[in-house]
Amino acid sequence: MKQEQQIIGFDNSGGGSETFCSYNPANQSNNAYQFYKATADEVNHAVLKAAAAFQVYRKKSGVDKAKFLTSIADELLNTGDELVTVCSNETGLPAARIEGERVRTANQLKMFATLLTEGSWVDARIDTAIPDRTPIPKPDLRFIHIPLGPVVVFGASNFPLAFSVAGGDTVSALAAGCPVIVKAHPAHPATSAFIGKIIQKAAQITDMPDGVFSLLFDNGIDVGLQLVKHPLIKAVGFTGSFKAGKAIYDAAVSRPEPIPVYAEMGSTNPVFILPQAMKERGREIATAYSAAVTLGVGQFCTNPGMLIYQNTEQDFNESLKAAFEKTSGGVMLTPTILNAYKTGVQQHLATEGVEQLAQSGFQPEMEASNAIPVLLITNTNVFNNTPQLSEEIFGPTGIVISTSTKKEMLSIAENLSGHLTATVHGADEELMEYKELLDILEQRAGRVIINGFPTGVEVCNSMVHGGPYPSTTDSKTTSVGTAAIFRFTRPVCYQNVPQLLLPVALKNKNELNISRLINGVRTTKDII
Amino acid sequence: MKQEQQIIGFDNSGGGSETFCSYNPANQSNNAYQFYKATADEVNHAVLKAAAAFQVYRKKSGVDKAKFLTSIADELLNTGDELVTVCSNETGLPAARIEGERVRTANQLKMFATLLTEGSWVDARIDTAIPDRTPIPKPDLRFIHIPLGPVVVFGASNFPLAFSVAGGDTVSALAAGCPVIVKAHPAHPATSAFIGKIIQKAAQITDMPDGVFSLLFDNGIDVGLQLVKHPLIKAVGFTGSFKAGKAIYDAAVSRPEPIPVYAEMGSTNPVFILPQAMKERGREIATAYSAAVTLGVGQFCTNPGMLIYQNTEQDFNESLKAAFEKTSGGVMLTPTILNAYKTGVQQHLATEGVEQLAQSGFQPEMEASNAIPVLLITNTNVFNNTPQLSEEIFGPTGIVISTSTKKEMLSIAENLSGHLTATVHGADEELMEYKELLDILEQRAGRVIINGFPTGVEVCNSMVHGGPYPSTTDSKTTSVGTAAIFRFTRPVCYQNVPQLLLPVALKNKNELNISRLINGVRTTKDII
Repeated sequence: MKQEQQIIGFDNSGGGSETFCSYNPANQSNNAYQFYKATADEVNHAVLKAAAAFQVYRKKSGVDKAKFLTSIADELLNTGDELVTVCSNETGLPAARIEGERVRTANQLKMFATLLTEGSWVDARIDTAIPDRTPIPKPDLRFIHIPLGPVVVFGASNFPLAFSVAGGDTVSALAAGCPVIVKAHPAHPATSAFIGKIIQKAAQITDMPDGVFSLLFDNGIDVGLQLVKHPLIKAVGFTGSFKAGKAIYDAAVSRPEPIPVYAEMGSTNPVFILPQAMKERGREIATAYSAAVTLGVGQFCTNPGMLIYQNTEQDFNESLKAAFEKTSGGVMLTPTILNAYKTGVQQHLATEGVEQLAQSGFQPEMEASNAIPVLLITNTNVFNNTPQLSEEIFGPTGIVISTSTKKEMLSIAENLSGHLTATVHGADEELMEYKELLDILEQRAGRVIINGFPTGVEVCNSMVHGGPYPSTTDSKTTSVGTAAIFRFTRPVCYQNVPQLLLPVALKNKNELNISRLINGVRTTKDII
Repeated sequence: MKQEQQIIGFDNSGGGSETFCSYNPANQSNNAYQFYKATADEVNHAVLKAAAAFQVYRKKSGVDKAKFLTSIADELLNTGDELVTVCSNETGLPAARIEGERVRTANQLKMFATLLTEGSWVDARIDTAIPDRTPIPKPDLRFIHIPLGPVVVFGASNFPLAFSVAGGDTVSALAAGCPVIVKAHPAHPATSAFIGKIIQKAAQITDMPDGVFSLLFDNGIDVGLQLVKHPLIKAVGFTGSFKAGKAIYDAAVSRPEPIPVYAEMGSTNPVFILPQAMKERGREIATAYSAAVTLGVGQFCTNPGMLIYQNTEQDFNESLKAAFEKTSGGVMLTPTILNAYKTGVQQHLATEGVEQLAQSGFQPEMEASNAIPVLLITNTNVFNNTPQLSEEIFGPTGIVISTSTKKEMLSIAENLSGHLTATVHGADEELMEYKELLDILEQRAGRVIINGFPTGVEVCNSMVHGGPYPSTTDSKTTSVGTAAIFRFTRPVCYQNVPQLLLPVALKNKNELNISRLINGVRTTKDII
């Protein structure tokens, strides 16, 4: 039995007495890894170290922070089969998926390294002085984004690499200049420890301050709540369930000093099929939808759990049924998640007017640990009058809503709450006719997709992985892509500050060669 | 007696039975203006109109919105003596101040019109598709900021034009594409009605939708709370006291759907005087500080209510005393504010270790309606152990904290909570020696000022009028300057959306000639 300790800056600490084990959801037994639950003293120690480290880390250049992130990425890519085995054994995810996620996570680290090396992200703005302006002189004003302070990150169970210890929240906070304390997800603690050690080592070899990163273990809520309520913590990143995200949000806004919480809480990601598209590619759409909704056992934030179509003569339901029966289920991340999936499907089925349209023919060896995909169907009336039908069931299931008119379809769109994504399948000319639908959907989602599926969240400048409440607690941000960095910064303005004391990005000479807004004009020129 | 009604879009409505009067704080009597208090139905009607208007207004081009804002600005500049008289009679502010504020408010409207006409503010980002990428194709992704929805604005008593009905919150929300409902401040309802009619007219003549602007009256809290809790309201702008701002914040975050509240709640704006600067220009600084802290009867959010110096042999206190005694007091905005000022000073004076350093020689004709400036003094020990001494007293008063060492001065800086501004007076070489102080201050304030005073908030791209809690409820924003627009927007991403359906800012052809981030490169070029 391997015993893993808290990572507190450059030290490890196993001060506690309570422990818990890593669990294998496939064979339903404990793995040979035991974890100490962090004590209140250890939590406090990690925060104090983060606050001290912040005073050094906030002054690190973009190039230095980029070296840190690149070092994590390089080491991550060197983890070979060992990481895959450790991770697979506690998540039930197949090797290929973990390998893909590892590359994605490393690329995400490198993307932020590139952003930092280039440097323009700080949004430098300069308005130069006009000393002889009347009635009063205009001062010299210079604006830049600075980091908020120590950040707490709660990783997600469903992306043990890309949305966990070295995932999007951690990397964007570190890129911003904020130390990070990760509360390891109890569904993959061994993977977390593995990655935590990589970050700890990378911090040391790239000369980052002790405390820039810590990793704490807990299979309950004590450590997380203590972190969120600690006065030296300045922001929180979270990916997970609505219930947990909302509890963290409520704790954060009721602190003596409220702090921002970026909770990405998932959604049902509606997919609308327009009549012409269904006529032209009904069978193809049915197959692609069935594959998307069951991909990775339906364990994606952007899983398209809602399909709305306008009835046509063609029998789309038959195509859906045929395609869905051919899909696969699999082991889910944890027994709790599997149970919630089964209960959710049963509750939907118990609703009058909701029926089962199809069930996957998947027949697992160990039925107790596997989820079997189920596709449900209902009509507009039932759907619009049963709010719980639009709530997310995490897993390989979707609900098909059959509508008979464009008006009905629009009424469903109008009634949607906030989602991460919304998708429309339509022929070109038809999409113009349904422009009203697109107008509604962009007000309900962070990302609007045409003729595709929402799974697969590209990591780039233009991504928005966010959306109106309740898909997140802050629709004004994204948790994927370069814009995620601004969750952990705030603007500050320097008035008449001498050149020597200004941050390098704001000096007259544009040493970093970054894009700046000088007296309203975007330029890379020096001020002379 | 002139009776003023609610402005609800293009209609006026006087459905209520309760009324209140505009009050003249100088002669302590009612003005000849009576206001209906908005009823619950009127509030709801204004919100429904705003929500309907949003569907039209959100699609208006930058040029069209700019015409609307410019029309308000032009009309505002045409208000002549009438506005000055109305405003002065209910605020006690002198004509010159109101005239200056009018120009500032018009310039602010024009600045946002310029921003909209130029158009790059939307932060357009485009990552083009790579269909043959392996293992999976890269989709076409395009990112832009879109407006949040109907916004409620609570104007401030102390800036009846620049932070009120047509002030910074209103103009930045309208610029973003959000309809605005203003809850008129009861300390200047006639001014509010005057300006509200200008905006109503401007909306009509520039073809904006009915409901893009409404103005509601209330001298209590019912209308404000109903607005903040209304499910169709998507954000709140507020400038005023900590107590009111925090109450609005608490109401907003506990809604079924929490919404962002941008409450700018003022601060004490510490000013630090370094030894060499005091030696070189002690008398000058004493005079300038005395003028700044009593300017406009101390009724500025950025009033420098805290002065910290490091003891030197020169008698700076004597200079301060001499300068302060020559300052003027005056009529305060409301009797409530005047009483709070007097009580606040008395409470500070009742604290052991706090003494009166100076009192203005100002002798008003009507003592009951005028504030007399008072300067207090204490030492580091008392200050650091008495948290309430750092709380804002709104009015012409400051507290001087005499420290004997650099370490003591730094300890005061360390103990500061969030402020809108922090100021340092120092000789050039000395500022480098006190770099540590500046490092601390930029973590405590939204704006850091060298060798100046914080009053006078320049309206430009580089301004930050914001700061860490409790100076605001959202340190990540500013309520003055062009960056204020992002308080009322969120990013949305379009994936594989056909050219015809994309917002004009995101089409391949850069018709607006705006700066865009295309595949990581900032450019105004088309995509070909």
